[in-house]
Amino acid sequence: MPSPDQRLDELGIELPRFPELPFVPRLRPVLVHGGLAYLSGIGPIGVTGRLGDTMTVEEGYAAARETALLALRRIVDEWDTLDRVERWVKVLGFVRSAENFGEQPAVVNGFTDLIVDVYGEERGLAARSAIGVPELPAGIPVEVEAIVAVH
Amino acid sequence: MPSPDQRLDELGIELPRFPELPFVPRLRPVLVHGGLAYLSGIGPIGVTGRLGDTMTVEEGYAAARETALLALRRIVDEWDTLDRVERWVKVLGFVRSAENFGEQPAVVNGFTDLIVDVYGEERGLAARSAIGVPELPAGIPVEVEAIVAVH
Amino acid sequence: MPSPDQRLDELGIELPRFPELPFVPRLRPVLVHGGLAYLSGIGPIGVTGRLGDTMTVEEGYAAARETALLALRRIVDEWDTLDRVERWVKVLGFVRSAENFGEQPAVVNGFTDLIVDVYGEERGLAARSAIGVPELPAGIPVEVEAIVAVH
Repeated sequence: MPSPDQRLDELGIELPRFPELPFVPRLRPVLVHGGLAYLSGIGPIGVTGRLGDTMTVEEGYAAARETALLALRRIVDEWDTLDRVERWVKVLGFVRSAENFGEQPAVVNGFTDLIVDVYGEERGLAARSAIGVPELPAGIPVEVEAIVAVH
Repeated sequence: MPSPDQRLDELGIELPRFPELPFVPRLRPVLVHGGLAYLSGIGPIGVTGRLGDTMTVEEGYAAARETALLALRRIVDEWDTLDRVERWVKVLGFVRSAENFGEQPAVVNGFTDLIVDVYGEERGLAARSAIGVPELPAGIPVEVEAIVAVH
Repeated sequence: MPSPDQRLDELGIELPRFPELPFVPRLRPVLVHGGLAYLSGIGPIGVTGRLGDTMTVEEGYAAARETALLALRRIVDEWDTLDRVERWVKVLGFVRSAENFGEQPAVVNGFTDLIVDVYGEERGLAARSAIGVPELPAGIPVEVEAIVAVH
Protein backbone atom coordinates (compact mmCIF):
# COMPACT_ATOMS: atom_id res chain seq x y z
CA MET A 1 0.00 0.00 0.00
CA PRO A 2 1.59 3.33 -1.00
CA SER A 3 1.65 6.14 1.57
CA PRO A 4 -0.66 9.09 0.88
CA ASP A 5 2.39 11.15 -0.15
CA GLN A 6 3.46 8.46 -2.64
CA ARG A 7 -0.10 8.10 -3.86
CA LEU A 8 -0.30 11.83 -4.57
CA ASP A 9 2.84 11.45 -6.70
CA GLU A 10 1.41 8.40 -8.49
CA LEU A 11 -1.72 10.38 -9.32
CA GLY A 12 0.49 13.16 -10.70
CA ILE A 13 -1.18 15.70 -8.44
CA GLU A 14 0.63 18.86 -7.46
CA LEU A 15 -1.07 20.58 -4.54
CA PRO A 16 -2.24 24.14 -5.23
CA ARG A 17 -0.96 27.00 -3.12
CA PHE A 18 -3.49 28.23 -0.63
CA PRO A 19 -5.34 31.19 -2.22
CA GLU A 20 -5.09 34.70 -0.80
CA LEU A 21 -8.28 35.29 1.21
CA PRO A 22 -10.40 38.38 0.50
CA PHE A 23 -11.13 38.59 4.25
CA VAL A 24 -9.24 38.05 7.49
CA PRO A 25 -11.01 35.35 9.45
CA ARG A 26 -10.06 35.00 13.12
CA LEU A 27 -9.32 31.28 13.27
CA ARG A 28 -6.73 28.54 13.30
CA PRO A 29 -6.65 26.72 9.95
CA VAL A 30 -5.84 23.49 11.81
CA LEU A 31 -6.34 22.94 15.53
CA VAL A 32 -5.10 19.74 17.14
CA HIS A 33 -6.58 18.50 20.39
CA GLY A 34 -6.84 15.02 21.86
CA GLY A 35 -5.51 13.21 18.80
CA LEU A 36 -7.93 14.92 16.45
CA ALA A 37 -7.21 17.76 14.06
CA TYR A 38 -10.07 20.11 13.28
CA LEU A 39 -9.78 21.68 9.82
CA SER A 40 -11.46 25.07 9.47
CA GLY A 41 -13.90 25.54 6.61
CA ILE A 42 -12.11 25.54 3.25
CA GLY A 43 -13.34 26.48 -0.20
CA PRO A 44 -12.02 27.25 -3.66
CA ILE A 45 -11.59 31.00 -3.14
CA GLY A 46 -11.67 32.72 -6.53
CA VAL A 47 -14.31 30.38 -7.92
CA THR A 48 -17.87 31.69 -7.58
CA GLY A 49 -21.12 30.02 -8.51
CA ARG A 50 -24.36 28.47 -7.45
CA LEU A 51 -25.28 24.89 -8.20
CA GLY A 52 -28.43 24.46 -10.23
CA ASP A 53 -28.05 27.97 -11.58
CA THR A 54 -24.64 29.15 -12.82
CA MET A 55 -22.89 25.83 -12.19
CA THR A 56 -23.48 22.21 -13.22
CA VAL A 57 -23.02 19.20 -10.96
CA GLU A 58 -19.80 18.40 -12.85
CA GLU A 59 -18.44 21.90 -12.21
CA GLY A 60 -19.47 21.65 -8.57
CA TYR A 61 -17.75 18.27 -8.31
CA ALA A 62 -14.58 19.84 -9.71
CA ALA A 63 -14.82 22.70 -7.18
CA ALA A 64 -15.22 20.17 -4.36
CA ARG A 65 -12.19 18.22 -5.64
CA GLU A 66 -10.20 21.48 -5.66
CA THR A 67 -11.37 22.01 -2.07
CA ALA A 68 -9.95 18.59 -1.15
CA LEU A 69 -6.59 19.57 -2.69
CA LEU A 70 -6.62 22.72 -0.53
CA ALA A 71 -7.36 20.57 2.53
CA LEU A 72 -4.35 18.40 1.67
CA ARG A 73 -2.28 21.57 1.22
CA ARG A 74 -3.29 22.62 4.73
CA ILE A 75 -2.15 19.26 6.08
CA VAL A 76 1.20 19.45 4.26
CA ASP A 77 1.70 23.04 5.45
CA GLU A 78 1.14 21.83 9.01
CA TRP A 79 3.18 18.61 9.10
CA ASP A 80 5.17 18.40 5.81
CA THR A 81 3.53 15.05 5.14
CA LEU A 82 0.03 13.74 4.49
CA ASP A 83 0.92 10.66 6.51
CA ARG A 84 0.41 12.33 9.88
CA VAL A 85 -3.30 11.97 9.19
CA GLU A 86 -4.14 8.48 10.35
CA ARG A 87 -7.77 8.58 9.27
CA TRP A 88 -10.43 10.95 7.96
CA VAL A 89 -13.17 10.97 10.58
CA LYS A 90 -15.86 13.47 9.63
CA VAL A 91 -16.59 15.70 6.64
CA LEU A 92 -19.27 18.39 6.56
CA GLY A 93 -19.86 19.85 3.11
CA PHE A 94 -21.94 22.90 2.30
CA VAL A 95 -23.05 23.45 -1.30
CA ARG A 96 -24.30 26.81 -2.52
CA SER A 97 -27.60 25.79 -4.09
CA ALA A 98 -30.26 27.41 -6.25
CA GLU A 99 -33.93 26.69 -5.62
CA ASN A 100 -34.80 23.01 -5.90
CA PHE A 101 -31.23 21.85 -6.40
CA GLY A 102 -31.02 18.58 -4.50
CA GLU A 103 -27.78 16.93 -5.67
CA GLN A 104 -25.49 18.11 -2.88
CA PRO A 105 -24.16 14.58 -2.28
CA ALA A 106 -22.95 14.27 -5.90
CA VAL A 107 -21.10 17.59 -5.52
CA VAL A 108 -19.45 16.76 -2.19
CA ASN A 109 -18.31 13.45 -3.73
CA GLY A 110 -15.70 15.56 -5.51
CA PHE A 111 -14.10 16.11 -2.13
CA THR A 112 -14.41 12.62 -0.70
CA ASP A 113 -13.50 10.79 -3.93
CA LEU A 114 -10.16 12.61 -3.99
CA ILE A 115 -9.48 11.94 -0.31
CA VAL A 116 -10.24 8.23 -0.79
CA ASP A 117 -8.03 8.16 -3.92
CA VAL A 118 -5.12 9.48 -1.87
CA TYR A 119 -5.66 7.75 1.51
CA GLY A 120 -7.47 4.58 0.40
CA GLU A 121 -10.89 3.54 1.68
CA GLU A 122 -9.75 2.29 5.08
CA ARG A 123 -8.20 5.64 6.06
CA GLY A 124 -9.97 8.02 3.70
CA LEU A 125 -13.65 7.13 3.87
CA ALA A 126 -15.29 9.29 6.56
CA ALA A 127 -18.71 9.99 8.00
CA ARG A 128 -20.18 12.86 6.02
CA SER A 129 -23.09 15.24 5.55
CA ALA A 130 -23.96 17.32 2.51
CA ILE A 131 -26.10 20.41 3.01
CA GLY A 132 -27.51 23.03 0.63
CA VAL A 133 -27.00 26.67 1.56
CA PRO A 134 -27.80 29.90 -0.27
CA GLU A 135 -24.57 31.80 0.32
CA LEU A 136 -20.96 31.10 1.22
CA PRO A 137 -17.99 33.40 1.87
CA ALA A 138 -16.94 35.35 -1.24
CA GLY A 139 -19.50 33.47 -3.31
CA ILE A 140 -17.63 30.14 -3.37
CA PRO A 141 -19.81 27.20 -4.48
CA VAL A 142 -18.57 24.74 -1.84
CA GLU A 143 -17.19 24.88 1.69
CA VAL A 144 -15.97 21.86 3.61
CA GLU A 145 -14.83 21.44 7.20
CA ALA A 146 -13.37 18.21 8.51
CA ILE A 147 -12.13 16.29 11.51
CA VAL A 148 -9.17 13.95 11.01
CA ALA A 149 -7.35 11.68 13.44
CA VAL A 150 -3.60 12.31 13.66
CA HIS A 151 -0.73 10.29 15.09
CA MET B 1 -34.67 1.36 33.83
CA PRO B 2 -35.40 -0.56 30.61
CA SER B 3 -32.62 -0.82 28.01
CA PRO B 4 -33.13 1.20 24.81
CA ASP B 5 -33.94 -2.05 22.98
CA GLN B 6 -36.62 -2.91 25.55
CA ARG B 7 -37.91 0.63 25.48
CA LEU B 8 -38.33 0.48 21.70
CA ASP B 9 -40.45 -2.65 22.20
CA GLU B 10 -42.46 -0.99 24.96
CA LEU B 11 -43.19 1.93 22.64
CA GLY B 12 -44.30 -0.54 19.97
CA ILE B 13 -41.89 0.94 17.47
CA GLU B 14 -40.64 -1.13 14.57
CA LEU B 15 -37.62 0.49 12.95
CA PRO B 16 -38.05 1.30 9.26
CA ARG B 17 -35.69 -0.18 6.68
CA PHE B 18 -33.15 2.28 5.43
CA PRO B 19 -34.52 3.80 2.20
CA GLU B 20 -32.82 3.27 -1.15
CA LEU B 21 -30.81 6.43 -1.87
CA PRO B 22 -31.32 8.24 -5.20
CA PHE B 23 -27.57 9.03 -5.17
CA VAL B 24 -24.34 7.27 -4.22
CA PRO B 25 -22.63 9.30 -1.53
CA ARG B 26 -18.98 8.46 -0.82
CA LEU B 27 -19.14 8.06 2.93
CA ARG B 28 -19.29 5.72 5.90
CA PRO B 29 -22.77 5.75 7.47
CA VAL B 30 -21.16 5.28 10.89
CA LEU B 31 -17.50 5.90 11.68
CA VAL B 32 -16.14 4.97 15.09
CA HIS B 33 -13.02 6.62 16.45
CA GLY B 34 -11.83 7.23 19.99
CA GLY B 35 -15.00 6.02 21.68
CA LEU B 36 -17.24 8.23 19.57
CA ALA B 37 -19.38 7.20 16.62
CA TYR B 38 -20.02 9.82 13.97
CA LEU B 39 -23.34 9.32 12.17
CA SER B 40 -23.44 10.68 8.64
CA GLY B 41 -26.29 13.01 7.71
CA ILE B 42 -29.60 11.17 7.62
CA GLY B 43 -32.98 12.24 6.32
CA PRO B 44 -36.36 10.79 5.38
CA ILE B 45 -35.54 10.02 1.75
CA GLY B 46 -38.78 9.88 -0.23
CA VAL B 47 -40.38 12.70 1.73
CA THR B 48 -39.98 16.13 0.14
CA GLY B 49 -41.08 19.50 1.42
CA ARG B 50 -40.19 22.88 2.75
CA LEU B 51 -41.23 24.11 6.17
CA GLY B 52 -43.33 27.26 6.13
CA ASP B 53 -44.39 26.53 2.57
CA THR B 54 -45.50 23.00 1.62
CA MET B 55 -45.11 21.58 5.13
CA THR B 56 -46.43 22.46 8.59
CA VAL B 57 -44.41 22.33 11.79
CA GLU B 58 -46.32 19.15 12.75
CA GLU B 59 -45.39 17.50 9.45
CA GLY B 60 -41.78 18.61 9.88
CA TYR B 61 -41.77 17.21 13.42
CA ALA B 62 -43.01 13.89 12.03
CA ALA B 63 -40.26 13.93 9.39
CA ALA B 64 -37.66 14.59 12.07
CA ARG B 65 -39.06 11.74 14.17
CA GLU B 66 -38.79 9.46 11.13
CA THR B 67 -35.17 10.65 10.77
CA ALA B 68 -34.51 9.57 14.37
CA LEU B 69 -35.92 6.11 13.59
CA LEU B 70 -33.51 5.90 10.64
CA ALA B 71 -30.65 6.87 12.94
CA LEU B 72 -31.65 4.06 15.30
CA ARG B 73 -31.83 1.70 12.30
CA ARG B 74 -28.25 2.70 11.44
CA ILE B 75 -27.16 1.89 14.98
CA VAL B 76 -28.92 -1.50 14.97
CA ASP B 77 -27.45 -2.30 11.54
CA GLU B 78 -23.99 -1.57 12.96
CA TRP B 79 -24.15 -3.31 16.35
CA ASP B 80 -27.41 -5.34 16.48
CA THR B 81 -28.36 -3.41 19.61
CA LEU B 82 -29.15 0.18 20.54
CA ASP B 83 -27.38 -0.40 23.83
CA ARG B 84 -23.89 0.03 22.39
CA VAL B 85 -24.64 3.75 22.36
CA GLU B 86 -23.78 4.92 25.84
CA ARG B 87 -24.89 8.48 25.31
CA TRP B 88 -26.06 10.90 22.63
CA VAL B 89 -23.47 13.69 22.55
CA LYS B 90 -24.25 16.11 19.75
CA VAL B 91 -27.06 16.57 17.25
CA LEU B 92 -26.95 18.99 14.31
CA GLY B 93 -30.28 19.40 12.54
CA PHE B 94 -30.88 21.18 9.26
CA VAL B 95 -34.44 22.15 8.33
CA ARG B 96 -35.41 23.08 4.78
CA SER B 97 -37.10 26.42 5.39
CA ALA B 98 -39.16 28.88 3.36
CA GLU B 99 -38.65 32.61 3.79
CA ASN B 100 -39.23 33.81 7.34
CA PHE B 101 -39.77 30.35 8.78
CA GLY B 102 -38.12 30.46 12.20
CA GLU B 103 -39.39 27.38 14.04
CA GLN B 104 -36.47 25.05 13.28
CA PRO B 105 -36.15 24.04 16.97
CA ALA B 106 -39.76 22.80 17.11
CA VAL B 107 -39.10 20.68 14.02
CA VAL B 108 -35.83 19.16 15.26
CA ASN B 109 -37.60 18.30 18.53
CA GLY B 110 -39.18 15.47 16.51
CA PHE B 111 -35.73 13.90 16.39
CA THR B 112 -34.60 14.56 19.94
CA ASP B 113 -37.96 13.75 21.59
CA LEU B 114 -37.82 10.26 20.09
CA ILE B 115 -34.21 9.72 21.10
CA VAL B 116 -34.99 10.79 24.68
CA ASP B 117 -38.09 8.54 24.69
CA VAL B 118 -35.89 5.56 23.81
CA TYR B 119 -32.67 6.33 25.74
CA GLY B 120 -34.05 8.40 28.64
CA GLU B 121 -32.89 11.91 29.47
CA GLU B 122 -29.59 10.95 31.05
CA ARG B 123 -28.33 9.13 27.95
CA GLY B 124 -30.53 10.64 25.26
CA LEU B 125 -30.47 14.38 25.80
CA ALA B 126 -27.64 15.87 23.73
CA ALA B 127 -26.20 19.23 22.82
CA ARG B 128 -27.96 20.40 19.69
CA SER B 129 -28.26 23.07 17.02
CA ALA B 130 -31.15 23.69 14.63
CA ILE B 131 -30.42 25.55 11.40
CA GLY B 132 -32.60 26.69 8.50
CA VAL B 133 -31.39 25.85 5.00
CA PRO B 134 -32.96 26.32 1.58
CA GLU B 135 -32.19 22.94 0.03
CA LEU B 136 -31.28 19.43 1.12
CA PRO B 137 -30.43 16.26 -0.84
CA ALA B 138 -33.37 15.00 -2.92
CA GLY B 139 -35.60 17.68 -1.43
CA ILE B 140 -35.91 16.12 2.04
CA PRO B 141 -37.28 18.53 4.67
CA VAL B 142 -34.82 17.57 7.43
CA GLU B 143 -31.27 16.27 7.68
CA VAL B 144 -29.58 15.35 10.94
CA GLU B 145 -26.02 14.32 11.75
CA ALA B 146 -24.95 13.19 15.19
CA ILE B 147 -22.10 12.18 17.45
CA VAL B 148 -22.75 9.44 19.99
CA ALA B 149 -20.50 7.87 22.61
CA VAL B 150 -20.18 4.08 22.34
CA HIS B 151 -18.87 1.45 24.71
CA MET C 1 -1.32 36.43 31.93
CA PRO C 2 -4.71 37.26 33.54
CA SER C 3 -7.27 34.45 33.84
CA PRO C 4 -10.31 34.69 31.54
CA ASP C 5 -12.42 35.77 34.55
CA GLN C 6 -9.94 38.58 35.37
CA ARG C 7 -9.74 39.53 31.72
CA LEU C 8 -13.53 39.88 31.53
CA ASP C 9 -13.31 42.29 34.48
CA GLU C 10 -10.46 44.21 32.87
CA LEU C 11 -12.53 44.63 29.73
CA GLY C 12 -15.41 45.90 31.86
CA ILE C 13 -17.75 43.31 30.43
CA GLU C 14 -20.79 42.20 32.37
CA LEU C 15 -22.25 39.01 30.93
CA PRO C 16 -25.87 39.30 29.79
CA ARG C 17 -28.52 37.04 31.28
CA PHE C 18 -29.56 34.26 28.96
CA PRO C 19 -32.67 35.43 27.07
CA GLU C 20 -36.02 33.72 27.49
CA LEU C 21 -36.45 31.41 24.48
CA PRO C 22 -39.64 31.69 22.37
CA PHE C 23 -39.50 27.89 21.92
CA VAL C 24 -38.65 24.86 24.06
CA PRO C 25 -35.81 23.02 22.40
CA ARG C 26 -35.11 19.50 23.64
CA LEU C 27 -31.38 19.74 24.30
CA ARG C 28 -28.62 20.16 26.83
CA PRO C 29 -27.10 23.65 26.62
CA VAL C 30 -23.71 22.15 27.49
CA LEU C 31 -22.83 18.48 27.26
CA VAL C 32 -19.48 17.27 28.58
CA HIS C 33 -17.97 14.03 27.34
CA GLY C 34 -14.38 12.86 27.13
CA GLY C 35 -12.84 16.17 28.18
CA LEU C 36 -14.78 18.16 25.61
CA ALA C 37 -17.82 20.33 26.20
CA TYR C 38 -20.27 20.67 23.34
CA LEU C 39 -22.14 23.99 23.39
CA SER C 40 -25.56 23.90 21.75
CA GLY C 41 -26.32 26.50 19.10
CA ILE C 42 -26.60 29.97 20.62
CA GLY C 43 -27.87 33.22 19.14
CA PRO C 44 -28.97 36.69 20.20
CA ILE C 45 -32.64 35.87 20.77
CA GLY C 46 -34.65 39.07 20.46
CA VAL C 47 -32.50 40.44 17.65
CA THR C 48 -33.81 39.70 14.16
CA GLY C 49 -32.27 40.50 10.82
CA ARG C 50 -30.67 39.34 7.64
CA LEU C 51 -27.17 40.33 6.59
CA GLY C 52 -26.97 42.13 3.28
CA ASP C 53 -30.60 43.19 3.63
CA THR C 54 -31.84 44.61 6.96
CA MET C 55 -28.45 44.40 8.69
CA THR C 56 -24.96 45.72 7.95
CA VAL C 57 -21.74 43.78 8.52
CA GLU C 58 -21.08 45.99 11.56
CA GLU C 59 -24.49 45.13 13.04
CA GLY C 60 -23.91 41.46 12.29
CA TYR C 61 -20.49 41.64 13.97
CA ALA C 62 -22.16 43.15 17.05
CA ALA C 63 -24.77 40.36 17.05
CA ALA C 64 -22.00 37.76 16.84
CA ARG C 65 -20.14 39.45 19.72
CA GLU C 66 -23.36 39.32 21.77
CA THR C 67 -23.57 35.63 20.88
CA ALA C 68 -20.07 35.13 22.31
CA LEU C 69 -21.14 36.83 25.55
CA LEU C 70 -24.08 34.41 25.75
CA ALA C 71 -21.67 31.50 25.22
CA LEU C 72 -19.56 32.81 28.11
CA ARG C 73 -22.72 33.13 30.20
CA ARG C 74 -23.47 29.46 29.46
CA ILE C 75 -19.97 28.52 30.65
CA VAL C 76 -20.28 30.56 33.86
CA ASP C 77 -23.76 29.11 34.52
CA GLU C 78 -22.23 25.63 34.21
CA TRP C 79 -19.01 26.01 36.18
CA ASP C 80 -19.06 29.43 37.91
CA THR C 81 -15.79 30.27 36.17
CA LEU C 82 -14.60 30.75 32.60
CA ASP C 83 -11.34 29.11 33.57
CA ARG C 84 -12.71 25.57 33.36
CA VAL C 85 -12.46 25.98 29.60
CA GLU C 86 -8.88 25.07 28.77
CA ARG C 87 -9.14 25.85 25.09
CA TRP C 88 -11.62 26.74 22.38
CA VAL C 89 -11.46 23.93 19.85
CA LYS C 90 -14.07 24.42 17.17
CA VAL C 91 -16.56 27.14 16.25
CA LEU C 92 -19.28 26.74 13.62
CA GLY C 93 -21.05 30.00 12.78
CA PHE C 94 -24.20 30.35 10.71
CA VAL C 95 -25.09 33.79 9.33
CA ARG C 96 -28.58 34.60 8.05
CA SER C 97 -27.72 35.99 4.62
CA ALA C 98 -29.57 37.78 1.84
CA GLU C 99 -28.83 36.94 -1.78
CA ASN C 100 -25.21 37.49 -2.74
CA PHE C 101 -24.06 38.38 0.75
CA GLY C 102 -20.61 36.79 1.05
CA GLU C 103 -19.04 38.36 4.14
CA GLN C 104 -19.95 35.66 6.67
CA PRO C 105 -16.35 35.49 7.99
CA ALA C 106 -16.36 39.21 8.90
CA VAL C 107 -19.61 38.68 10.83
CA VAL C 108 -18.45 35.58 12.72
CA ASN C 109 -15.27 37.50 13.67
CA GLY C 110 -17.52 39.29 16.17
CA PHE C 111 -17.74 35.99 18.04
CA THR C 112 -14.13 34.88 17.78
CA ASP C 113 -12.59 38.31 18.41
CA LEU C 114 -14.37 38.48 21.76
CA ILE C 115 -13.35 34.94 22.70
CA VAL C 116 -9.71 35.69 21.84
CA ASP C 117 -9.91 38.97 23.80
CA VAL C 118 -11.00 37.04 26.88
CA TYR C 119 -8.99 33.81 26.57
CA GLY C 120 -5.96 35.04 24.62
CA GLU C 121 -4.83 33.59 21.30
CA GLU C 122 -3.27 30.42 22.68
CA ARG C 123 -6.49 29.27 24.35
CA GLY C 124 -9.09 31.27 22.46
CA LEU C 125 -8.24 30.89 18.79
CA ALA C 126 -10.17 27.90 17.40
CA ALA C 127 -10.77 26.14 14.13
CA ARG C 128 -13.83 27.73 12.56
CA SER C 129 -16.27 27.75 9.67
CA ALA C 130 -18.66 30.51 8.60
CA ILE C 131 -21.71 29.55 6.56
CA GLY C 132 -24.54 31.56 5.01
CA VAL C 133 -28.08 30.35 5.68
CA PRO C 134 -31.49 31.82 4.79
CA GLU C 135 -33.28 31.33 8.10
CA LEU C 136 -32.46 30.77 11.76
CA PRO C 137 -34.65 30.16 14.83
CA ALA C 138 -36.86 33.16 15.66
CA GLY C 139 -35.19 35.18 12.91
CA ILE C 140 -31.86 35.69 14.71
CA PRO C 141 -29.07 36.89 12.38
CA VAL C 142 -26.35 34.58 13.76
CA GLU C 143 -26.16 31.16 15.42
CA VAL C 144 -22.96 29.63 16.73
CA GLU C 145 -22.19 26.20 18.14
CA ALA C 146 -18.84 25.31 19.63
CA ILE C 147 -16.65 22.60 21.06
CA VAL C 148 -14.32 23.54 23.93
CA ALA C 149 -11.83 21.49 25.90
CA VAL C 150 -12.40 21.49 29.66
CA HIS C 151 -10.22 20.48 32.58
